[in-house]
This record gives sequence, C-alpha cells and structure tokens, in this order.
Amino acid sequence: MARKTKEEIAEIYQQMQNHICEGIAAADGKGYFEEDQWNRPEGGGGRTRIFRDGDIIEKGGIAFSAVHGPTPKKILAKLGLTEGDFFATGVSIVIHPKSPMIPIIHMNIRYFEMENGVHWFGGGIDLTPHYIVPEDATFFHEKLKTTCDKFDSGYYDRFKSWADDYFFIKHRNETRGIGGIFYDRLEATSDAHFENLLEFSLALGRLFPEIYGHYMRQNSQIQYGDLEKSWQNLRRGRYVEFNLVWDAGTKFGLDTNGRTESILMSMPPVANWEYMHEVEENSPEHFTQEHLKKGIDWLSYSKND
Amino acid sequence: MARKTKEEIAEIYQQMQNHICEGIAAADGKGYFEEDQWNRPEGGGGRTRIFRDGDIIEKGGIAFSAVHGPTPKKILAKLGLTEGDFFATGVSIVIHPKSPMIPIIHMNIRYFEMENGVHWFGGGIDLTPHYIVPEDATFFHEKLKTTCDKFDSGYYDRFKSWADDYFFIKHRNETRGIGGIFYDRLEATSDAHFENLLEFSLALGRLFPEIYGHYMRQNSQIQYGDLEKSWQNLRRGRYVEFNLVWDAGTKFGLDTNGRTESILMSMPPVANWEYMHEVEENSPEHFTQEHLKKGIDWLSYSKND
Repeated sequence: MARKTKEEIAEIYQQMQNHICEGIAAADGKGYFEEDQWNRPEGGGGRTRIFRDGDIIEKGGIAFSAVHGPTPKKILAKLGLTEGDFFATGVSIVIHPKSPMIPIIHMNIRYFEMENGVHWFGGGIDLTPHYIVPEDATFFHEKLKTTCDKFDSGYYDRFKSWADDYFFIKHRNETRGIGGIFYDRLEATSDAHFENLLEFSLALGRLFPEIYGHYMRQNSQIQYGDLEKSWQNLRRGRYVEFNLVWDAGTKFGLDTNGRTESILMSMPPVANWEYMHEVEENSPEHFTQEHLKKGIDWLSYSKND
Repeated sequence: MARKTKEEIAEIYQQMQNHICEGIAAADGKGYFEEDQWNRPEGGGGRTRIFRDGDIIEKGGIAFSAVHGPTPKKILAKLGLTEGDFFATGVSIVIHPKSPMIPIIHMNIRYFEMENGVHWFGGGIDLTPHYIVPEDATFFHEKLKTTCDKFDSGYYDRFKSWADDYFFIKHRNETRGIGGIFYDRLEATSDAHFENLLEFSLALGRLFPEIYGHYMRQNSQIQYGDLEKSWQNLRRGRYVEFNLVWDAGTKFGLDTNGRTESILMSMPPVANWEYMHEVEENSPEHFTQEHLKKGIDWLSYSKND
C-alpha cells in the first residue's frame, strides 16, 4: 500500500472541512458559512469559512489551507537545514458560542512535508468550558479515548498529558480549559504507521461535529443571566491571553508572515479584562477556577467525586 | 555632584506616581485610585493604583514598583553574565478612556541597575487615538519635542523613530497609534549624563498629566455614537494584540514570573474582534487606518496638509 501524496492528503483534508462544516451548520440550524478563498504569494492558499448569523454560534471559523514554498527560516533552523521547500496542509477550527453554558472548542489536524522527505503529522482537540461541568468533561475525554484506542492504545494517555502541557497559561498558572489531546511532529516509521497517523487525524475530524454537536444541542437548553455572560467574557480574555502569548501555532504564524485574519479567527468576538477579578467562594465560577489545572483524570472524575 | 542612589531614584519615582495620580484624578473629576500594595517573594514590591468609577476614564492604572533580587536568567544571558543581583524601579501607566474620541495613552519611566554597576534608563510615552486627528497628534508631538529639547537636541528625533519602530504591530503592518517617544538601555557616561537621564524621565512624568489632562478635558466634549464605540472596541483589540504579541516589556514580565495583574493592567476593559472588518472609504476610520504608519512627521503634518 503506497503512502498518499501530500496533494492527496490536502484533498482529503479539504473534504474533511466540508464534512465538519455541514455537521456544525446542521447543529446550529440557522447560520451559514461564508467562504473566503485566498492565495499565498509564496505558494498555495486556503479556504477560510466563517460562520455567520448563527443561533448558537457567535463567532467561529473552520479553515482549510495547503501552502508551500521556501521554508521559513525559523523552521529551517530547527531542522538544521539552510534551504528547501515545504508543504503544509491542515484544518483548523475555533468556535465561540453565544451561550456561556456551551464550551469554546478548538481542533486542528495538519500534515507537514519537506522536499527532502522529512514529514510529520500534528493535531489536537481541546475544550474550554466557561463553566467546568464534570459530566461534560468526562463525555469529552471518553470520546477522545475511544477514538484514540482504535489507533494505538498508548495515544490517549500520551496525547492527553501533552495537551495538559500545551494548553497551559503559564502566567496565570492555569490550563486553558479541560484539555483534550495534542500531538505534534509525529513522523511515520513505516507505510502502515503513515496510514495510521493519517487515519487517526481523519477520525478526529469526524469526531469533531459529533462532540460539538452534542454540546450545542444539550447545553443550549441551559438558562443563564448577566453573571454568566460577564464570566464568559473574562474567560474569553484568558483565551486571548493563551492564544497570543503562548500558542506556538499562532506565534509561528504571526512571526512568519502568515495570513493574519485566518490565524486570528480564533479570537473571541468580545473579551473583557478586570483588574484582580475575584470569584465567590463555592460558586460555579470558583469550581471552574479550581479545576483549571493539569493532570485531572476526567475519565474517572465524575465517578469518584 | 554625586549620583543619586537606586533607593533615592525609587523614592523619587514613587513621588512621581503620587503627582501623576493627583493630576489625572483632578482631570477626571469623579473617580479615584484604589491602591494595591504587593510584595515580590524574591525582593521588593510595588504599589499598583487602579482608577475606579471614573467619569472620563473607563479603566486605567498607574503603577510604581521597585524590585530586586537574583537577576532573571534571560537578562543575565543578554548581559553575558552568569549571576548577580539586579534592582529595577519605574512608573507605568496605561489609560483606556470611555469615549472613543479620547486617545488611549501609555507612559513608562524606569531605571535598572546590576550589582556590578551596569545600569540604564528607559522609558517612553505613546498615544493611541481610536480616531487619528492631526491637530491632536501635532499637539502631542510638539509637547514631547519641547520637553526633549530641554535635555538634548537629538533626543526627539532619535526617540521618535525608536517609538515608531517599537510600537509597531508587525502582523498587521500598522503602528499601534501615532507613536511618541521611546528609549531603552541608556547608560550614563558621566555624573552629569546620569543627572540628565534621570531629570529627563522626571520631566516626562510631569508632562504626562499635562498632556492627558488636555485630551480628557477637550475631547470629552465630542459627541459619538454606536459606530464610534464599536470602532473603539476593534482598536482596543489591536491594542491587546500589540501588548500580548509584541511588547517586549509585557513578554519579559510574563516570561519571568512577574506580577501578572500589574503587567496586564494595560488590557482594555473590553475588546472586540471581527473577521476581515472593513471600514468605509473616506471615513474617519479609514483616515485613521491610513495613518497607522511609521515615519509621519506629526510636527509639520497639520501645517502642510
């Protein structure tokens, strides 16, 4: 079985963007995706889709890109190379819902290849609830584990703690949310491994609308008021802090002259900052704050607590 | 004439914080500063003052700090040292007004000293109008030039272009606002030079309430509506982007375990992001966007245009 070419992978990822958009638009029931096709001067381009006029989604984007050309110096330096062309393709998603009772979600799957044959897969899904609810968190991690286990019994544990480390707001000493899975620079050691890594990324892509559709349907039924909205906007401020200060993908994109509007489609529609905001003892906000930490085993949390 | 000691400079800067707070509170006429004293585990501390319940100011902080202890590794590396204690003191200000017709302002003056005698002064003032108005910009730069010229006829030109380069949002290819002055790592070559640098920083401190008081009084008379408010919140988003992605001071503070709440007092109360926002041709928003660039000679702009 021959490995798929980079062009075939790009084509498959582009179809995955279609699939995810359909699922999300159906779950929202009202909004639609507006498409923006763009070209990269140095080679390749993308298809950014922004959700408009949603009932449940306030701001969201599902972006596909396949870019190529001379490799940015920062990547060359990391690889110990002085020149060479690269090819990168992927699907990126960030969705900010209207309701503070629905989590923010992020997903990314990507494939990178250098002209000298070096290549890797990367990706991840993580969930940022404005309010952490153990049952919701367990649902999320169970879905991820089930999917991971189909490909490698070691993936979930390894990629779950990778996510805990990656989605961490160091200057706040808190995680962005309840984590998920994250993996990067996985190079295939055989054709079968290559197929495994590609199929794993596609399984995550298919899982995405299933997971988020669940929260969209279930959590949009929960009532909320001004307190919850203002807490949501403070949590969105933290989301901004993570993405602009710590997210390696965002930093890399902004540093290497990437397409700013596509990179920053992850920004929330609104974010608030308050000096020394304090939450009430034993409130849901307090519970959330207490659970923004690494190493929580969400698979068993709801059962033990 | 002996040089002032680092402790004396800290005392003088602390008094400057008092002076600036009085001027700003008087110009607002309604709000007051709430004080937060904090200690740094490794040595020193600060006095952060946050403006509350203002009539003109929506969110603002004027912070003094004087910290010392083992030098963070990142500074040591830059200095080619492996160990040694440091001392740093300064006053930092960011003010976000309610009205989009009043500019955002930032000021910082600071003094740094290593135990081996290496020392430097740094600082700057820059203005970020939500709407660029040439007369306002000329007023600002004239005040800065007059103050600079009292200390060194070369300061204004040099520090003005330093500010153009420093307050630049690379990923947007635009300046943060109309610039101002910025200088860093100025080491005194004589006692007289030391006195000149210290007094220069104090002159900037005294200039601050004079300049910002002017805009607070004058521009708070200008009417505005929903369009201007929503533009303000988008511009605030850019302010967040600059501070979190490019501002060396913010990055350094967050990287070296600084006091997060004091560092991020620069964040606006609210910020908005919109995918691919477009302004109307020939609108004031368009004029502003067209003037967010380096190298504009604001001293002569209003006269020539």
